[in-house]
Amino acid sequence: MTFELTKEYVERIEVAIEARDEATLKAEMEELFPADINTVLYELKPEAAHYLFTLLDTEVGAEILANIDDPADRRQFLANFSSAEITHYIELFDSDDAADLLKEQSIKVREEVIALLKDREQARFILDLLPYDEDVAGGLMQKELVKANVNWTVNECIEEIRKQAEDVEKVYAVYVIDDNQTLLGLVSLKNLVLARKNTKIGTIFDDDILYVETYRPVEEVVEIMQRHDLDAIPVVNVQKRLLGRITIDDVIDVITEKAEEDIQAIAGITGEVEEDDTVWAQAKARLPWLLVGVAGSLMAATVIRSFEGELGKVAALAMFIPIMGSTGGNVGIQTASLIVQTLSDKSGLEISWKERLRKVVLIAILNGLIIGLLAGLYVWVSNETALFWVVSLSLLAVVLLASFMGTITPLLLNRIGINPAIASGPFITTANDLVGIGTYFLIAHYLLKM
Amino acid sequence: MTFELTKEYVERIEVAIEARDEATLKAEMEELFPADINTVLYELKPEAAHYLFTLLDTEVGAEILANIDDPADRRQFLANFSSAEITHYIELFDSDDAADLLKEQSIKVREEVIALLKDREQARFILDLLPYDEDVAGGLMQKELVKANVNWTVNECIEEIRKQAEDVEKVYAVYVIDDNQTLLGLVSLKNLVLARKNTKIGTIFDDDILYVETYRPVEEVVEIMQRHDLDAIPVVNVQKRLLGRITIDDVIDVITEKAEEDIQAIAGITGEVEEDDTVWAQAKARLPWLLVGVAGSLMAATVIRSFEGELGKVAALAMFIPIMGSTGGNVGIQTASLIVQTLSDKSGLEISWKERLRKVVLIAILNGLIIGLLAGLYVWVSNETALFWVVSLSLLAVVLLASFMGTITPLLLNRIGINPAIASGPFITTANDLVGIGTYFLIAHYLLKM
Repeated sequence: MTFELTKEYVERIEVAIEARDEATLKAEMEELFPADINTVLYELKPEAAHYLFTLLDTEVGAEILANIDDPADRRQFLANFSSAEITHYIELFDSDDAADLLKEQSIKVREEVIALLKDREQARFILDLLPYDEDVAGGLMQKELVKANVNWTVNECIEEIRKQAEDVEKVYAVYVIDDNQTLLGLVSLKNLVLARKNTKIGTIFDDDILYVETYRPVEEVVEIMQRHDLDAIPVVNVQKRLLGRITIDDVIDVITEKAEEDIQAIAGITGEVEEDDTVWAQAKARLPWLLVGVAGSLMAATVIRSFEGELGKVAALAMFIPIMGSTGGNVGIQTASLIVQTLSDKSGLEISWKERLRKVVLIAILNGLIIGLLAGLYVWVSNETALFWVVSLSLLAVVLLASFMGTITPLLLNRIGINPAIASGPFITTANDLVGIGTYFLIAHYLLKM
Repeated sequence: MTFELTKEYVERIEVAIEARDEATLKAEMEELFPADINTVLYELKPEAAHYLFTLLDTEVGAEILANIDDPADRRQFLANFSSAEITHYIELFDSDDAADLLKEQSIKVREEVIALLKDREQARFILDLLPYDEDVAGGLMQKELVKANVNWTVNECIEEIRKQAEDVEKVYAVYVIDDNQTLLGLVSLKNLVLARKNTKIGTIFDDDILYVETYRPVEEVVEIMQRHDLDAIPVVNVQKRLLGRITIDDVIDVITEKAEEDIQAIAGITGEVEEDDTVWAQAKARLPWLLVGVAGSLMAATVIRSFEGELGKVAALAMFIPIMGSTGGNVGIQTASLIVQTLSDKSGLEISWKERLRKVVLIAILNGLIIGLLAGLYVWVSNETALFWVVSLSLLAVVLLASFMGTITPLLLNRIGINPAIASGPFITTANDLVGIGTYFLIAHYLLKM
């Protein structure tokens, strides 16, 4: 039942486009859901995609356009469209999707489209939304919602839904307001269906509801909706006037994007690249963190050089350079990622710094002793007994230091407003590499003198 | 407006519990949403939490119990409850939540609770769901839904919703079936509100809908619902009989869990631990991958030892051991994480192996040349000119090899059914450390002989 895109299918569509075979193309697209047509368009050359797109129903086209996630992809796709053409689809958009699309366009296109919109209420909605950044509640909200005055009856309320039906795709609930547009509560669609026609809304609405202000950070909105299993949440201004609502589908997109960003940050990739981006874009996205790694390693080279004397005396010292670096890196990543996880879970008591460090130190001692002893055993077996204490003690010290840095770095980054996930990536590995190797040679320096 | 848990608040509640001050506690809890009460309970000692819990309204208690995510936490919390007490809350659960909770309990408790349930339809629903694993659609679905025969009128349909209203918390849509319970389509709640009372359902329902079979993997369900912005999806058996539905809140939980798992896998933490777990649990979860790292580094030590001759001749060789290991590790993680990202995005044409490798190699050459030249410059400046070609060429080779391994490993793991995210973690770092150092000394061996 789900659509599987194959190379053969794409080729068949390309041939039909080449032949300008409208009937076949329309019939083929008729079979697909909009999201699937989108994946087909994505595989076609720009002009071919544009041609196929113009054959679609306007509603289907609008749904596809609204759901292209990558702003760069969408801007490129729309490069062939006139402002009038864009307006034609925008007319069927929800206000939040329209504002998102127009923010990606030049100011000229943006103003042309807004001027061309026939529905002046929609134009006003979009203008209301344009100023909000995408990282606050106002940037996620849509203006379309059904609201009812607290003095209305259920019947008046259903009449209002009927009037709005075309504009509000998913109703979920009717928001209840007073004469000043102040949010008082809501009636779920289910309760509206079940209530008698002449009941007053004031007697059946739920006044104990959650809402957010326009300026709330998106992460807070996501957390509230997820914790309380909400399908939609109303958005108000500082006077608690109802301005819009945020629906669950937008929240899911935020969650998915955040997860991808975190993973890319941990992996040391800057910006949002994907495997099918150009070679140049991918190389550029990787280079910055690789260079951080190179810089760190060259500092390590300088450290090693300064201990040339020790290396000259005990050449076997070189054998354990890798274990110091990699153990430091691995412990640092593990520690940092747990801290990042706690930071992103905002429910529950904040763990105190003291308690945090106490645990981190205990875990580090436990793991440090085990690793230190194992490596010591290897030293013993390979007949480098002079290095037993150097290697074992260094590893314990490295695990302790790396745990400490893995704890501190994300907490500090978070405090100064940088995504702490980047602390779990190449940054921490590089820093710990360097610290690990430095510690090792210092310990060797003192122990071998004795 | 959102609840912030403070130490002082928890202490105040603890004092009130100590004093068995029912009135204060009830008043305080009245102020909170169930999800917030849950975070309070989590901070209390088991007996205190149990006492506070029994003071809550049964509905609130049921909502809290249904939403404890961690099975171990919930089992522990319920350890003080009799089967009759558990049944008391389960009676208010949706069937999917009830089945999830009972799967965590002993067979004895499970059977006692099912026998004690007064609503025999609910008991049958739960028994229907118990056999499904949590990683297929059947394990996510709930039996509660509103269905209507295609021959009914809108009025009969609304009567049915009225009857079911208590059991079905969020309706979203009414599923339309024929006399054999075969799924034909659906009517959205909105359209039902808008239709005339005596309209036949058969004339207004949407027959072009998405559904899933019980055996579909959870990831597929998530992907379908996310791509098509669905609030709920019906679940059918192989004969397309309607068995249940999956709602969006469950899907969000799956997405969040998956993201956390991936990050832990990349960070090299096995199992699901959190920062507030015990020292022992955390140490255990980290040790396996640390040991893999240690094993790899000790192999690297053995490799280095076998090149003692080269190290004796050119002591400066030791200086560049860290850069080989860390560059290999960083490149490997970057490459693997992009592959993992592509693998989890199932829409779009699969990228062919040839195309994949072509790009990977080009990116590697580009970045390898830049890094190799920079490091070469350092070699030059630090007057180790003999090592210029050794270091530069080794780095190019290391970047190429690490890119290759970072591409192949997740693809292979994915093919044999292991979460490819673990390939982006300590595994790839360790392997690349080893390969990097080996390559370096081999190249040194041949170039220095000349």
